[in-house]
Amino acid sequence: MTENNVLVAQSGGPTTVINSSLAGVIASALEEKKIDKVYGAKNGILGVLRDNIISLDELFGKNHELLERLKTTPSMFLGSCRHKLANIDQSTEEYKKVFEIFEQYNIRYFFYIGGNDSMDTVAKLSQYAKQIDYDIHIIGIPKTIDNDLVEIDHTPGFGSAAKYIASSFLEISHDTYIYDTESVVIVEVMGRNAGWLTASAVLARNEYSAAPHLIYLPEVAFSKEAFLEDVRRMIKENKQVVIAVSEGIKDHTGEYVSAGSAKLDSFGHAQLSGTGKYLEELVKNEIGCKVRSIELNVLQRCASHLSSLTDIEEAYQLGYQGVERAVEGHTCEMMSLSRVSNAPYKVAYQTVDVMKVANAEKKIPAEWINESGNDVTNELVEYLRPLILGEPKVDYTSGLPKYLHFDHINQTVK
Amino acid sequence: MTENNVLVAQSGGPTTVINSSLAGVIASALEEKKIDKVYGAKNGILGVLRDNIISLDELFGKNHELLERLKTTPSMFLGSCRHKLANIDQSTEEYKKVFEIFEQYNIRYFFYIGGNDSMDTVAKLSQYAKQIDYDIHIIGIPKTIDNDLVEIDHTPGFGSAAKYIASSFLEISHDTYIYDTESVVIVEVMGRNAGWLTASAVLARNEYSAAPHLIYLPEVAFSKEAFLEDVRRMIKENKQVVIAVSEGIKDHTGEYVSAGSAKLDSFGHAQLSGTGKYLEELVKNEIGCKVRSIELNVLQRCASHLSSLTDIEEAYQLGYQGVERAVEGHTCEMMSLSRVSNAPYKVAYQTVDVMKVANAEKKIPAEWINESGNDVTNELVEYLRPLILGEPKVDYTSGLPKYLHFDHINQTVK
Repeated sequence: MTENNVLVAQSGGPTTVINSSLAGVIASALEEKKIDKVYGAKNGILGVLRDNIISLDELFGKNHELLERLKTTPSMFLGSCRHKLANIDQSTEEYKKVFEIFEQYNIRYFFYIGGNDSMDTVAKLSQYAKQIDYDIHIIGIPKTIDNDLVEIDHTPGFGSAAKYIASSFLEISHDTYIYDTESVVIVEVMGRNAGWLTASAVLARNEYSAAPHLIYLPEVAFSKEAFLEDVRRMIKENKQVVIAVSEGIKDHTGEYVSAGSAKLDSFGHAQLSGTGKYLEELVKNEIGCKVRSIELNVLQRCASHLSSLTDIEEAYQLGYQGVERAVEGHTCEMMSLSRVSNAPYKVAYQTVDVMKVANAEKKIPAEWINESGNDVTNELVEYLRPLILGEPKVDYTSGLPKYLHFDHINQTVK
Repeated sequence: MTENNVLVAQSGGPTTVINSSLAGVIASALEEKKIDKVYGAKNGILGVLRDNIISLDELFGKNHELLERLKTTPSMFLGSCRHKLANIDQSTEEYKKVFEIFEQYNIRYFFYIGGNDSMDTVAKLSQYAKQIDYDIHIIGIPKTIDNDLVEIDHTPGFGSAAKYIASSFLEISHDTYIYDTESVVIVEVMGRNAGWLTASAVLARNEYSAAPHLIYLPEVAFSKEAFLEDVRRMIKENKQVVIAVSEGIKDHTGEYVSAGSAKLDSFGHAQLSGTGKYLEELVKNEIGCKVRSIELNVLQRCASHLSSLTDIEEAYQLGYQGVERAVEGHTCEMMSLSRVSNAPYKVAYQTVDVMKVANAEKKIPAEWINESGNDVTNELVEYLRPLILGEPKVDYTSGLPKYLHFDHINQTVK
């Protein structure tokens, strides 16, 4: 009798909870009677193509503590890639190689943890399996800090990024309020097309701080004049002004505001000027007060020590239940979650057609942005609030968070 | 009988533990029989000049929980300023005003929490008190993330910043290692003249990660050619290279490297190009691999959720024992600590002459930097290691760290 084995891989950009989904897949597969072995591919689909396959039951099967630590380790334990498979009608070369490997390892269940590009891979592999009549169940496990996937209430990874961002805005406001002088701090948040991450800065507002005082999203056409008027008014009202701005804001012609700043530079150093730097320059030149810009950068997607427990648990469940659905017979689907109620916060898990998710993008609905286009509405705040709740237990060693790394665990286990 | 009252104020740039020193001063003053009332001045010495004085025993006297929370609240609870008093032989106008306020509130003990500029204020006020024969004891409580004060083993605020920096490098390395391609990440750390903060990135190295692979400090003249050679070699050895660089690195003529980049820009936008951005550009142009620069920015001095318990406790003791020394009769001194032993880590507290501290600056000794000038020695690692140990209990509310803010507490108490 041939074995029924699982293969799991990770793809795309990091989040702080993508390994929690991996832990869910591994735990569920280890428990599932119909599954024999659990394999992982290194560096996503590239690892499959290169036969870079490792045994995960050997690593995690007898070590519950390691599996727990995996849940709070940032980025991808198995490594990642950005590799798009060709359309099947154009070339089947890579598909043949992938299914050779599937056959070699008796893979009957394949789980791909990733964003909408990865769902494209899930869709294409499912399609090819059907074409060659290969018995396999392929399920996508969603992840992205950007929260821009369709067919899901919110994406795993987003809640933790939102918590990091809101917490950073709170700490930056403490840093800003200390001097009795006018000042502007512009904080640039990730998000080229969707403003979810930038909007989550709103959660920093509390009884003593209205920061961020202004929020600029890629969903709203950016006007330099309106921005300067907003800032001038806010300086009058608050003296210290903290601004959340998405890296992806565009003017009314659809051109990135940050690209505009490159025009100032005759040497064409566009990459020197991010959106925040550009606005810093604008405020300095046009208003003339003390101004600073801060780019939150990659820490918003990898600072696991400040992740959301809600997010970690949901990511775990999506992986865990993904295995159950696959064994039940589902394929060519993405695991998803819907919000059953907001207070008390409750979600339900289900699968959705992966074809609907691949290559689509969800932006902030217009009704969740205020009329002036410089803030968000309370509906959006209520939507965001539960996603950042709860703190995981993070162990520290030598004063630093204790994470797992493939090379290290591999040495330890062997 | 007139009262013997305490006045305390904070000055300079934020750290995550400057409020822990404030908590130490308040707790000690509340316990001390010889002290009647505890006042705080808002915005440092400016608050004294403006008679912006508040009662701290009313706020904290009966609320132990608030005092505990103060210890883990970032930045300055009492606000800050950057105000240098004139030399006494030039103008005594401000001094007269300060001592009028001292007399009005029966201030016999004044504590100023700050860096070397603040120690200049402590020295001048002590000098003036002596001149006018005013009975007051003035003690400086040190703080600065930069660790550049003399006459002290290390400064309060530095350990927490070092912990944040090392933790960020660890998380950034997890973010970087996932792709199987060559890449360079340049992380810019604060420090214009002293490289302590940048050097503390070294603590991120562990069993599975050698990041930061290269460390560039302001103490070493920076050479573009040597840098590019270092990076090329490290790419060959490690594929992914993480670099720690101080914002203040200078070339052999003493000119800031970041200033050099401004020359590229015909519009004179020097402020658009930080050191990290400049090196990013250099690697992109000269080596051509994937490269990213990250500026840790103000979060390294205000991310209290990730502060060092060792640092918090030492900052508290410096404030607490500062009151005891003042009552014993000390004045015109700064509280200090020396390292009694490294393993087990143990410090002793004492006072030092504030005149020796004011306006002086401590850099990394040459013997703690490697010969190539691109790394630090093990002696420096051993010096740094104990300073980041321990994690405080940080309460969370609505998913965010719970901090104290003056406006809020004032409302709550009244």
